This record gives sequence, C-alpha cells and structure tokens, in this order.
Amino acid sequence: MSVVTAAADRSICSPLPVLGKDVTVPLVTGGEVTYAALDYAASAPALQRVWDDVAAYAPYYGSVHRGAGYLSQLSTDLFENSRKAVAEFLGCRAGDQVIFTRSTTDSLNLLAAAVPADCQVFVYETEHHASLLPWRDARVTYLNAPRTPAQAVETLERALAGRDSSPSSQLRSSRGGPIGPALVCVTGASNVTGELWPVKELAAVAHAHGARIVLDAAQLAPHHPVDIDELDVDWVAFSGHKLYAPFGSGVLAGRSDWLQDAEPYLAGGGASRKVARRADGGVDVEWHSTAARHEAGSPNVIGVYSIASACKALTEAGFDRLVAREQQLVTRVREGLAEVPQVKVLSLFGDDAPRVGVISFVVEGWNSSHFAAALSAEYGIGVRDGLFCAHPLVRTLLGSDPQDPGECGAPEAEPGERSLNAIRVSFGAGTPDEHIERFVRAVKELVSEGAQWKYRTEDGRCVPDRGTAQV
Amino acid sequence: MSVVTAAADRSICSPLPVLGKDVTVPLVTGGEVTYAALDYAASAPALQRVWDDVAAYAPYYGSVHRGAGYLSQLSTDLFENSRKAVAEFLGCRAGDQVIFTRSTTDSLNLLAAAVPADCQVFVYETEHHASLLPWRDARVTYLNAPRTPAQAVETLERALAGRDSSPSSQLRSSRGGPIGPALVCVTGASNVTGELWPVKELAAVAHAHGARIVLDAAQLAPHHPVDIDELDVDWVAFSGHKLYAPFGSGVLAGRSDWLQDAEPYLAGGGASRKVARRADGGVDVEWHSTAARHEAGSPNVIGVYSIASACKALTEAGFDRLVAREQQLVTRVREGLAEVPQVKVLSLFGDDAPRVGVISFVVEGWNSSHFAAALSAEYGIGVRDGLFCAHPLVRTLLGSDPQDPGECGAPEAEPGERSLNAIRVSFGAGTPDEHIERFVRAVKELVSEGAQWKYRTEDGRCVPDRGTAQV
Repeated sequence: MSVVTAAADRSICSPLPVLGKDVTVPLVTGGEVTYAALDYAASAPALQRVWDDVAAYAPYYGSVHRGAGYLSQLSTDLFENSRKAVAEFLGCRAGDQVIFTRSTTDSLNLLAAAVPADCQVFVYETEHHASLLPWRDARVTYLNAPRTPAQAVETLERALAGRDSSPSSQLRSSRGGPIGPALVCVTGASNVTGELWPVKELAAVAHAHGARIVLDAAQLAPHHPVDIDELDVDWVAFSGHKLYAPFGSGVLAGRSDWLQDAEPYLAGGGASRKVARRADGGVDVEWHSTAARHEAGSPNVIGVYSIASACKALTEAGFDRLVAREQQLVTRVREGLAEVPQVKVLSLFGDDAPRVGVISFVVEGWNSSHFAAALSAEYGIGVRDGLFCAHPLVRTLLGSDPQDPGECGAPEAEPGERSLNAIRVSFGAGTPDEHIERFVRAVKELVSEGAQWKYRTEDGRCVPDRGTAQV
Repeated sequence: MSVVTAAADRSICSPLPVLGKDVTVPLVTGGEVTYAALDYAASAPALQRVWDDVAAYAPYYGSVHRGAGYLSQLSTDLFENSRKAVAEFLGCRAGDQVIFTRSTTDSLNLLAAAVPADCQVFVYETEHHASLLPWRDARVTYLNAPRTPAQAVETLERALAGRDSSPSSQLRSSRGGPIGPALVCVTGASNVTGELWPVKELAAVAHAHGARIVLDAAQLAPHHPVDIDELDVDWVAFSGHKLYAPFGSGVLAGRSDWLQDAEPYLAGGGASRKVARRADGGVDVEWHSTAARHEAGSPNVIGVYSIASACKALTEAGFDRLVAREQQLVTRVREGLAEVPQVKVLSLFGDDAPRVGVISFVVEGWNSSHFAAALSAEYGIGVRDGLFCAHPLVRTLLGSDPQDPGECGAPEAEPGERSLNAIRVSFGAGTPDEHIERFVRAVKELVSEGAQWKYRTEDGRCVPDRGTAQV
C-alpha cells in the first residue's frame, strides 16, 4: 500500500459503532440531546461488535473446564481461544502467560503478590493508584515526577544505579551472589494527561540493571497497539472495561516464572490440582503451574470473551487508522482549548509530547466539579472531575494553582483537596466528531457566557439548583 | 392464600425462561436435540429476565462513582441500588456490608484476608476447595466428615469446646482477656451431594463459643432462600454465575467490623480516600471504611446489576414455588436412579436428608468420564464428571469403592485419582421436566444396553472414538 493510499484510508476512517451512541439524555435547559460519552479513560462504551459477539454467545454459555456437555466444551474452547487471541493482540513471547483477572487493579495486585520476597519496586509518584499502591509487601522506592520523557529515563537510571551501589547490594555482590530482584512499574499513557511514557527506553534501562518492568497499559491498550516483545517489557496489565469490553475482566500477561513460583493469588477450585487430608489432620495441596494457578473459581467466560472480541475488532478495524483518527480529535480538542485563555491544560511533558485521547484541564475562576456538572446538565456531555485516582500527580500538576472549591466538591473530599480538582475529557474509537465539536463549543460558551444554572452539592453530587436558573 | 390454593399454585409452577433453552446440539448418533443443561452446580444459564435487564441497560453503561455525566450517574445509582437489592435478598441486618467480588472463591479469599491475625478457623474436610483452602494465614482445624447433620453439630461443638479448654485459651482466660477470635466456615448445600447442612444450629454453636460463622451459599442461594438474620450467620458468600447471572460478579455480605479493620483486599483507586507523598519520600494512604475499601478498581457494573436482577427475579417468581418444583425434580431423579441397581448415589447424610438439585453418583462397571461423555454425545445432556473441587469429600464418599478408570480420565488427574471420579447431575429454576426425564431414561439405557460408541481421551477430553461405533 502506498503512503498516499494509506493517508487516504486514514482520512475516511469512521468511529467504530458503540453501544449507547443514540442514547439521548435530558438537558436542564429543556429538551434532549444525544449523550456525548467523553469519559473513556474511566470506562468506555462496549463496541457494538463486542456486544453482538457476547449476545450471540450468551445462549451457548456453559460451565468451563470440567463439564462434559457440548456447551461446556464449546465454552471451554471459547475461553482458551480468548486467551490465545489476547496473547496475539499483545504480541506475547513463547512462554508468556496470559492470566485473566477482573481489572488492571486486580492484575497489578496479583503481580504484587507474586514478586519475590526480597524484591525492590520502583514506581513513579505520577502513577495511578492501581500502580502506586499494590506493592505492600515489597520495599518501594517512589520516583519523583519527571518533567520530560528523557528525565523519566534519567530518574530511573539514577535510582537503579543507586540500588547497584547500595551497601546491601555491594554486600550481596561481595558474597558473589546476584543483587536481589527488582521491578519497575510504569504507565504507558497517563490517565491524567494522556501523555505517553518512554516505555521501551525505560525497559532497556531496567533490564540493563537486572530489573524487570511491568507496563500499566490500562490507558495505552485502548488507544495504541501494545507489543510486549517489541517494547521488551516483562508484563502488561490492562482492563476490558476501558478497551470497549465492560464485562468485568482484565489481563495480566507476561513472564511466567515469578507467577509459577508464587503462592496462588486466590485459593480454591481450579487453581488446585490435588487436595488431600494428611495423616496428621492437615491438608496437602498441589497447585497448578499454568495460568489456572492464579485463576481460582469459575472464570468470567463472558468477560474474557468480550476482551478477545475487542482485541480482534480493533485489529481488524486497523489500529493504525484508529490511532490516526484519534490524533485528529486530540488536536481538535487541544486547539479548541488553546483558544480559551482561562483554560489551563495539565501536562507533565509539555506541548510536544505524544499523547492519547485523555486531556485534563482546569478553568480559571471555575470550580471543576461545577464546570463538569454544567457540561453534563446543559450540554449532555459526560466528563469526569476529581483527582482521577492519581492524587500525587494531580497535586504536582496543580500544586501552585489551587482553585476555589466553590460549593461543589468531590464526594468525601477534604476541603483542601477540593480546590485541586480538575476536569478530564477522554475519548476513543467510538467518539464521533460531533461530540468533540460540542465539547469545544460548550467550553467556550461556559467560559464566555457562564452557566445557565447554578449548581449545588446534593448527596455528594454536583447538581443543578432547580429554581436558580440564571436565564 | 389458603393452603389448597398455595398447593395448586405450586403444582402449576413452570420453569423460569433461561437463555439457551432452545439451543440444539449434534448427537454422535445422528441428528440434533435441544441441549439439556444439567450442570447448574458448576454454572447455571442466565435467566432470560437477567439477560433482558442487562441488554436494556448496556447502552446506558457508564463509568461509575466520579463521572459527572448523566449515564455515569445513572450507572452509579444502578450499582448502589444493586447493593441494596442484594442486601434485601439476603435479609441483611443494619450495619451489614455487601461487598461485590468476582465469585464465591473471591469472597472467601477476601474474608480470609480480613480475619484477625490470631483467628482460629474451623472448616469441615467436606467443603469445596473454595471454602477449604483460602485460610492460609490462619490456624486451621479441619473437621472430619460427619455422617449426619446432628454429628456435624456435635463435631463442631467438640472442636470449639476443645478450643475453650486448650492451654493457650486457658492462659488467655487466666489473664482475664477473651479467648481469641474464631471463625467457622460451612457450606449451606454440598456441591457434591446437594445435601443441606444444619446452618442455623451450627451458627448457634459457633456463637455460644464466641466464634463467628461464614456461610458458603454458592450452592444454596440459587436453590433456597437465604436469610442472614434468620440463620444468624455472620457472613454469606455466593456467586452470580450459579444464581443465573453469569457476568463475573459475586457477593460477600455480613458483619462490617473485621472488614473495616482489615487491610484493603485490593490496593488501588476506589479503595483509597486520600494518597499523598510524605516528606521522607514515602506515600501515605487513607483507605475507605465502606464496602469500597475492598472493591478497588472500576467495578463490574453489569455483573453486579445482573445479580440484583436475578435476586429480584427469584423473589418475584415466588422462591417457595421454585423450591417446591425443584424438589419434585429431585424426587424424580432419585426415584429414577433408585431403579437402577448399578447406580450408587453419593450421600453423606443418608436418604432422608433434605437436599437441593445436585446429585452425584457412580455406575458400577463404568468409568464416570466415559458415562458423562456418553450422556453428552448420545443424548445431548450436559453433566459433569470429576472430583468437583471437593477432593477430600469425594474420596470419603467413594473411598472403599474405587472405579476402574478405563481409558478416559479427568484431565491431568493422577492414575490413582481417576478411579475416584463421579458423575454429577444438577439443575434448578430453568430446568424443564423433559431434561430430567431424558436424563433418567438415558441412565437406564446406558446401563442396560451400553453406549453406542466407544470413548477415548483426546486433549484431556473424553470423546467418541469415531469409527468405533458399537451399532
């Protein structure tokens, strides 16, 4: 295919059909409008194709693994073929395991439970809490927020070099043993700024220092092809519900050795190969060493199948074309916001950093929850306000510029915290141009003309204060 | 309503519509037949009503909790209302928490992670591995298989009395402190024999000795109303996928104190209230004390909603009528099997024990995997063969009567283990009479006339050996 043809193909790429694209919602200002789902970074709508696959399969649903019936065997094949489809989507290496979990959070908690006892973990303070917090039994080094991708690499290089020369490492080294295991955890695309992290470079640094690396691809996989082999990361974690497959499953894929050596993540049926009472009254258990070791309990077959379906749908639609189209939308949003001086877009790596369709911002003179509520109530646009489960990062980005919390705040947030709220708009393969255009127009109108209603907190939510319409 | 009317109502109770009820499967003997799903104890088909609810909601799916958009708020309400519906279904007490997990296995692993550090756990060896194995950090006492419900109560009474008078307890007692915490874990209905356990009596014994009790209701809740208050148990665990809602969610409901005091089950967003870097470079986390504490990550909204939908459907259909109808099916199966002298039904508590629609058996002269494969291939009936993730129980039930494994065995089973396989037939609210009649007829024909095909193991499955038809 020539470059010219490829460009032409890209220019005609349409959004993929998603569930809910025709759903209308009421406006506080009267009438209804089709809902603009611009909170993909939290959870994306199901692709129509994914839903169709699930609906076609649902009547054939059956117990998996040990059922003797036709539908059980069909369902078992579907389940295991889904594992293969995900492995293919991620470009898994021979020997890699694909383990089905409930979400990225669950995947990273599983890996955290499987790291060797003396493992040192390195994680940037800028990570989502799902990457920041699971390492409870490990010695964790939190790395300060870098302000360029190159600084991210330098920061890790320095931290791992420090580990190599630390007294305990030298002690180990002097005894001839290897220095202990280490793991770096990094996001592929920030859930706050959408900015891409230099994963391949970080992986090279990690490996050069004998450390391993896990990629939190929750925000990357839905927006960009992820190749575990090409990036040379040891593990990848992502969630179905952000990848257009909101049926309760997630993935941890990668090296099998630590996982095979670890205690089963969940103890129960499916993970146990053989269980027997001992003469002394205790119980002996022989665990599986395959992915089943960490998948105790009946698997979520529909959830797993929906992920495989989404992987295939993205691949078949031409992921490069989806990326190209999403980049057009990113540009449109950023150009639109740049025309409003009161809007400050949050960025760690600066304007030129490559990014996915996740953009956070604050508006001068506005409480972010109020602004998000007005986008919803007056324009039918669903965004998110808050700290996006990345408190240290949002604090870093907003630190010197706290907002007035106004009367609407995040539910259960502390007063000091409210002023740090931001607004996040995020989109992807199902987003039509009209949602983006409406969003840009709404921001401009709200900033220039103000909201038509006042907003107040009710049951922890920011809602229009009926009776106080400003029109 | 008079007794007569109630009886009349019961007699006309029909199976509830389920997905897949019209699915046909090919027979090795030629032609097709509607699939008889008789493996409910592993996983039940979705109720049509549950599917319809999920399908109606799916276009309105949105991110929950912090999304400002209309569909996010609708989804958040749906999620939290589902929690209330489950609480109502279980008769939860004020102060009880309903935590959404991925399955019963997950629920019991969560509770195991939350028991106080010095907790003693008492569990019968007859439990499913999901109840038997999660107590990894606790001191576990395995109780021998009782052969009557009364003996179950006596066994527990004796074990807890032994705890009261143990030297360490006396030491504590002599120091004026309470004896340490204890937890009893028991199934409501056996996943092998279907027999009901005397839960209320066991709860009374547990509480009399200052212990708590968790009810594994995986096999009880789909077949029988469960009232946490009336049974006076401290926690109940069950799975959606056995309760006609196979969308990847489960439930742990009950006392909040141990759960609130425990470390979060998963660490991540949603469970964390506030996260901040410390001056020394570390990270401070403030966790939620509500159910959210143990529900980190984006929740499986569809899975949770499907459980609530199933709870409502069972209640509205009249659970008593469903129970009455299922008992008719149990009687029909047991009477049918009793007419075949070669069939031995597995039972812990004897013929008179109350039970749900879960019945395991072996057939003299038959390998169980072979028999189950013939039921599938020649009759379109889906049952299960194996040890049903309850190895010690099945060994106890079959111990003196090992079968010839023949050429088909459980995948990955040891030679010695194969001979202990059994066959399990299980059914419930969606099972039509015809499936039961076909099953009874099939058992009789297979025993009296033999299978029409030979069976062999292929990729760990027992399949018809094409070319060796015996007709």
